[in-house]
Amino acid sequence: VDDGRPHPTAGDLGEHALIERVAPRFGPPAEGEVWSGDDTAAFRWPEGELLFTTDLMVEDVDFKLAYSSGFDVGWKLVAANASDIAAMGGRPWRAVASIALRPETEIAFVDALAEGMAALSNDLGLGLVGGDFSSGREISASVAMLGIASDRGPILRSGARIGDALCVTGTLGGAAGGLLVLEEQIVAPGSGERETLVAASQRPRPRVDEGQILADYAHAMIDLSDGLAVDLGHITEASGVGCEIELGAVPPHESLNWLCDKRPHTDPVSLAITGGEDFELLVCLDASDLSEARARLDDQGTSLTRIGVVTDGPARIGDRDLEDWRAEGWEHLHNR
Amino acid sequence: VDDGRPHPTAGDLGEHALIERVAPRFGPPAEGEVWSGDDTAAFRWPEGELLFTTDLMVEDVDFKLAYSSGFDVGWKLVAANASDIAAMGGRPWRAVASIALRPETEIAFVDALAEGMAALSNDLGLGLVGGDFSSGREISASVAMLGIASDRGPILRSGARIGDALCVTGTLGGAAGGLLVLEEQIVAPGSGERETLVAASQRPRPRVDEGQILADYAHAMIDLSDGLAVDLGHITEASGVGCEIELGAVPPHESLNWLCDKRPHTDPVSLAITGGEDFELLVCLDASDLSEARARLDDQGTSLTRIGVVTDGPARIGDRDLEDWRAEGWEHLHNR
Repeated sequence: VDDGRPHPTAGDLGEHALIERVAPRFGPPAEGEVWSGDDTAAFRWPEGELLFTTDLMVEDVDFKLAYSSGFDVGWKLVAANASDIAAMGGRPWRAVASIALRPETEIAFVDALAEGMAALSNDLGLGLVGGDFSSGREISASVAMLGIASDRGPILRSGARIGDALCVTGTLGGAAGGLLVLEEQIVAPGSGERETLVAASQRPRPRVDEGQILADYAHAMIDLSDGLAVDLGHITEASGVGCEIELGAVPPHESLNWLCDKRPHTDPVSLAITGGEDFELLVCLDASDLSEARARLDDQGTSLTRIGVVTDGPARIGDRDLEDWRAEGWEHLHNR
Repeated sequence: VDDGRPHPTAGDLGEHALIERVAPRFGPPAEGEVWSGDDTAAFRWPEGELLFTTDLMVEDVDFKLAYSSGFDVGWKLVAANASDIAAMGGRPWRAVASIALRPETEIAFVDALAEGMAALSNDLGLGLVGGDFSSGREISASVAMLGIASDRGPILRSGARIGDALCVTGTLGGAAGGLLVLEEQIVAPGSGERETLVAASQRPRPRVDEGQILADYAHAMIDLSDGLAVDLGHITEASGVGCEIELGAVPPHESLNWLCDKRPHTDPVSLAITGGEDFELLVCLDASDLSEARARLDDQGTSLTRIGVVTDGPARIGDRDLEDWRAEGWEHLHNR
């Protein structure tokens, strides 16, 4: 709603006032810890190995303000980092953020960004303990996150064994479908399907509880940020193995059929294989552990689908090499 | 040297090739650790509390390519973060970086950026364990760093006690002087003074060893990133105290007299009080500990100068309130 009054901007406030404005959303600090307001945050490490990662989102590259709210951007930034922690089988613990704002960025956007970060952080039990603001010609935001590895240590990409079952959590291609809906302005008033796809794209939920359960079984694990074809390649390359994926076993997002009715020449299975940013987990485990792992994920309301097997041959999806799928993958769709 | 051949750019390589290109500069991983190449880095915490901070530098706001090389930017980004760790009395340990590059950014710049980060990281014994590249319309780089607090725990801004000696390491105003030299293109062929000031601005050395020594005595400590007037205010406000600073005791950088000859109406003491980015330490300690602390810093080749005292009165520098100094401080000089 434009009420005719000037809206305060990032340039009006400046760095220190911005920090004072957003920090309370993320506090108070946990008992005995130092969060925002000193030279650094300070805290003890509870137990286990540290996992440490960072992810950066830049305006017009990783998000567009035409269809992403500040809340969406903040949520997704925390989600992308937490998903990397989940892919190691760990639990998100503490994070810091670096945010560049255009001087004319409205404070309402900054508030929404902080609200989105805080909403998912609180859900995950993650403490956002500090950060830094600067200005720029475009908005960019990066989060660096620490996670606690499980007792079994970090689950690497390199541990896949020949004969392992290859499984994915949830369904695939929803985020890519949602992005198509937004970029091509496919409208469908009152359509739950449309909103479901958009939410998959803008408010992904990292599989944090699932990753910790799967750490009890996983030989190798990765989160699907660049799409199945690309991320599966990271596993097979790091592990020095091949794979056979059954096309019919790959679970497309349930609302992609709706999208295919609206948009000719759209193939749900192809989107499920090449679409990025679903933040589901791809895991390699003993076939004998599959039913137990599946039962425990069922209790979380999350499916675990066996899509193929690790082999000592080439890496293939259906009757095509992984490389062919990668060539038409997410990076093209994403115009990068 | 322009050899007429096209220079490869960030856009030519893309994210994965960029990571593969720069990661070897920072490896191999320490024994038993995971660094670049998986979903996150993973390592054990050696001992003591964690310090966690982040700092962001944006092109044309925090640095200008007209006078900062890629090496300078990478060096200063690590320096700014390490200085925050030093100000808590800690030791830099592990870091991750998030870098946005313009697609047309030359790979030579990326190499230099990585080289600058690696040079100071190696000096400090800091492991740069992972990172993320994206693209943007301007170059921006953020580092998130973990440090190990000393046995005495983190040294906060809030611990200053009435009667404490207020001391600074090294000399002040050199970085601001160097920035003036660069921005106003003050030339002086063969002048060691000019180069000394430029180096103070572009290649600051964080006081990491000094911070760990001072942690044995400090009641409160901060690094001088925004200038003495501003950062002293952070100490007095957080501690709920005042101070008296003697103008004549503040140690200006030794090359500022040369600058004042070249540039009318420049006052070394004023630059020393308001200039930012010296990354010296400001520390509050018992006057009775001063000689021992000073002797130990002398062994490092670093001076420790008593500039004033913590009081229960107002915060003053010379015969003016701190607020008056802040109003003409670094943020104005820096056009922010």
